Amino acid sequence: MTKPHKPDCPVAAMLNIFGDRWTLLVIREAFYGAARFSEFERNTGIAKNLLADRLALLTCEGILEKQDVGQSGTRYAYHLTDKGRALQPVLIAMVQWGNAHCYKDGNGPIEIIERASGLPIAPLQPSAQDGAILEAADMKVIPGPGATKRTHARLAEAYKTQTKETP
Amino acid sequence: MTKPHKPDCPVAAMLNIFGDRWTLLVIREAFYGAARFSEFERNTGIAKNLLADRLALLTCEGILEKQDVGQSGTRYAYHLTDKGRALQPVLIAMVQWGNAHCYKDGNGPIEIIERASGLPIAPLQPSAQDGAILEAADMKVIPGPGATKRTHARLAEAYKTQTKETP
Repeated sequence: MTKPHKPDCPVAAMLNIFGDRWTLLVIREAFYGAARFSEFERNTGIAKNLLADRLALLTCEGILEKQDVGQSGTRYAYHLTDKGRALQPVLIAMVQWGNAHCYKDGNGPIEIIERASGLPIAPLQPSAQDGAILEAADMKVIPGPGATKRTHARLAEAYKTQTKETP
Repeated sequence: MTKPHKPDCPVAAMLNIFGDRWTLLVIREAFYGAARFSEFERNTGIAKNLLADRLALLTCEGILEKQDVGQSGTRYAYHLTDKGRALQPVLIAMVQWGNAHCYKDGNGPIEIIERASGLPIAPLQPSAQDGAILEAADMKVIPGPGATKRTHARLAEAYKTQTKETP
């Protein structure tokens, strides 16, 4: 498990960690409260060797932390770190897109509700600092402080040919 | 390219389509305005055979639409459909998480700004129907109308062991 070169795009940086379906399913289980190897294994159907690799990767990346709970057989527990919990909007966005576009007529397998009201949460929508909802045409991707020359060139080209889509 | 069995989790449903890094990078390029095979190829570094496969998959899934633009050499153009454009919150959530957690000290390679103000957009945050910001403990995952028995059992178990994380 080698840690690849840091890419010049945060989507690619994320995909270096989540580049296969199993990793994100392990995260999903951690959000559901799974902590033990056997729980992750049972609930995802992942092979033992892949699961061991993914748990090591996620621990190495600081997304899970490994805790020695000193019980033979189920010695370690894995818990989400702050960095791991910060993935929640990514998972919610995936759930909302999957529900809306991969199942017919609102027939999604799960729903995320507000505990207090029992109502589904609102769809995630990008907003400005002042809270105004932003449409695609209201936003633009610009090079950040850590942009490489390649990123500068890529974005300059994107906004020449672009149809006002973001990001 | 076989279309897999529909899974009983919308995260898994999404990962059946986006189960490898290339697919999402092709989508990213489509958001940047890439439309031609050669543009996707140049900007992602993907091998031609993989790119052909991913463009066919995304067209088959209704995320891109293929348009015959009748020019020899660059005959087809690929554009995001409504289903494709609806992926924007997923990509924005990834960009924000990648920027915050994969690069040091705000040194992210790209930023998404509001065109009008020039300011970075706000972090995506889950909210209730009335607009109130929701913390993890304020939300719960419940079986949806399309839930299988397995999903019902899984979620019942999750909320027995769970540490109030969602989803």
